[in-house]
Amino acid sequence: STLKLGMIPADGIGREVLPAAQRVLEALGSSIPKPEFIPLLAGWDHFTKFGTALPEETIQVLKTECDGAMFGAVSSPSNKVEGYSSPIVALRKHLDLYANIRPVASVPGMDGKQVNMVIVRENTECLYVKQEKMEILPDGSKKAVAIRQITERASSRIGRMAFELALKRAEERAANPGGSFWKGPPKVTIIHKSNVLSVTDGLFRETVRAVKEKDASNRYASVDLEEQIVDSMVYRLFREPEIFDVTVAPNLYGDIISDGAAALVGSLGLVPSINAGDNFAMGEPVHGSAPDIEGKGIANPIATIRSAALLLSHLGYTAPAARINAAVNSVLLEGKVSTPDLGGKSSTNEVIDAVINKL
Amino acid sequence: STLKLGMIPADGIGREVLPAAQRVLEALGSSIPKPEFIPLLAGWDHFTKFGTALPEETIQVLKTECDGAMFGAVSSPSNKVEGYSSPIVALRKHLDLYANIRPVASVPGMDGKQVNMVIVRENTECLYVKQEKMEILPDGSKKAVAIRQITERASSRIGRMAFELALKRAEERAANPGGSFWKGPPKVTIIHKSNVLSVTDGLFRETVRAVKEKDASNRYASVDLEEQIVDSMVYRLFREPEIFDVTVAPNLYGDIISDGAAALVGSLGLVPSINAGDNFAMGEPVHGSAPDIEGKGIANPIATIRSAALLLSHLGYTAPAARINAAVNSVLLEGKVSTPDLGGKSSTNEVIDAVINKL
Ligand SMILES: CC(C)[C@H](C(=O)O)[C@@H](O)C(=O)O
Ligand SMILES: CC(C)[C@H](C(=O)O)[C@@H](O)C(=O)O
Repeated sequence: STLKLGMIPADGIGREVLPAAQRVLEALGSSIPKPEFIPLLAGWDHFTKFGTALPEETIQVLKTECDGAMFGAVSSPSNKVEGYSSPIVALRKHLDLYANIRPVASVPGMDGKQVNMVIVRENTECLYVKQEKMEILPDGSKKAVAIRQITERASSRIGRMAFELALKRAEERAANPGGSFWKGPPKVTIIHKSNVLSVTDGLFRETVRAVKEKDASNRYASVDLEEQIVDSMVYRLFREPEIFDVTVAPNLYGDIISDGAAALVGSLGLVPSINAGDNFAMGEPVHGSAPDIEGKGIANPIATIRSAALLLSHLGYTAPAARINAAVNSVLLEGKVSTPDLGGKSSTNEVIDAVINKL
Repeated sequence: STLKLGMIPADGIGREVLPAAQRVLEALGSSIPKPEFIPLLAGWDHFTKFGTALPEETIQVLKTECDGAMFGAVSSPSNKVEGYSSPIVALRKHLDLYANIRPVASVPGMDGKQVNMVIVRENTECLYVKQEKMEILPDGSKKAVAIRQITERASSRIGRMAFELALKRAEERAANPGGSFWKGPPKVTIIHKSNVLSVTDGLFRETVRAVKEKDASNRYASVDLEEQIVDSMVYRLFREPEIFDVTVAPNLYGDIISDGAAALVGSLGLVPSINAGDNFAMGEPVHGSAPDIEGKGIANPIATIRSAALLLSHLGYTAPAARINAAVNSVLLEGKVSTPDLGGKSSTNEVIDAVINKL
């Protein structure tokens, strides 16, 4: 059997880091089904050349031929461009990849903040429904409005994902106590702003609480349930990141929090994610297309490599995923080969080679 | 002449820190008009007792009798409570206090991150218009929507406020070069998410840009204009806070960013703000009502004292304001008297005494 993966490099350094996933997966040998990579198009560059940011064919191939996918990064125009809409946001919606799972962990044994959390970001609604309108007021000035949507359905399934992940992480910690900083019981922290948005964030909060509190089987009885107002969450994240295990957030808060958490572990270039739905998943480094370093061959491939590991693990190949993560941690711990975002002088390819050497 | 100030302690530690403003202002002696303090009611406690969170009388007295005001902090229920709405959000709107100005600066000479920035937060719209609705879908599940509003008028006046502040700060730096970390030219950084919210944040971004670029007199020619996407802003804030001077943001991003910036200087208990309109201003510590330490007499009064200084400076009393700030910095630098949030053992009153001693 084979493992068919759609590969969507998209823009900027997305094109430089995506090959890392391919090379590392190939290096795993027979521990996974032989991977087959299907290059697919999307992005701002594609839009400027062909008028579409996400070709219909890309969606079709992902839906009908692939077991999973890897996405690079997108560039965005700073001004509104007629007809352009972010392809990553569209992909998440089209494939109903409703959970954006972003683990942020420092490497055991390394200096710096001790953090081992995962951000479970709702990936389909909130302000990302992109229902926006412009109006001209009687005095001739402009007024714009956007809709922020929160549904019980989306909040409930993302809540369940968060609680399941909390259980799974607790199991992993039990199996490998040295591998983790978080020593407490499994915990889910709901992020919201219901003191201002009592209806929308009130619904998010209550629905996620209900996942635990109204579960007839009491499946989540062992999981602590806490909350943080989003502004206070950013404060805590900087001050005491070690208190977090699983956090669950509406789309935009999740977007913001994950960049904050990334800063704690030294570089956005280290933080992976998967966009996961019930039937499909797509790995994606959390960083952007980084126009400032594009073409220099110095982009950090680790976020992409870790995203490939997340994808494997999601597809059930946990042992090969763990092998990749161990190889990455050992390269980081040695500190001999690293890209400039981490203070090193190595190239993207040198880091990929180093990781493959440790596999 | 007298300086009439409405004093609204509201909830929790708001009641413990607001007296700090009163005592410090009184200690200034004849360098300001004799202050007169008018106690006014508002808050969640007031709502639970009397059914209203913001009595009409409070608004009327502020509007007709006061030269300015000081606000403490509000508690919020975690569940939606019929008829309750945050009094601080309402006050900002009723008095058209459209700018929430939040300077975050480390003390010259002290260890830690070097930061000297100010967050200029739009204070009247964005998701804070609180137009929310709940709907029951055909399948019986709930759907909630909120309106996010951005107008040209509000964006333009907050943009102008930001550029004026950048010029004023540059002047102050020129007058007192040792007092500041920021060595570059004045700079305004617009915070937005126009890669997703191209209409609403697109309008915010373009309108603020236009304040500089379309100013016929070229008044802001010396001010650099930059931008940060809000998620990337949180990352930068943790990684290189020293690059920011004035930042200007829609309401919710400003709320989130200011807690992040507060974390950099060691405690939310240090960060002041004023809510300012064209005709009125109200000082307010950035921290909340802190139910966990309420009643213990250990709340940090420095955010409130600095807010009083901001208010004085806004009212034109810049020399007495500078005296307060110098006294606060000297207490912090000595480090002998500090509340538990800063690792000390002193009480609220001991910190107030120490500041007054240095005046
Ligand atoms: C590029 C942008 C549309 C995207 C988002 O906001 O989701 C990015 O910031 C992310 O975190 O994946
Ligand atoms: C208490 C709350 C309504 C308020 C806000 O969101 O504006 C607070 O967080 C603040 O920053 O002043």
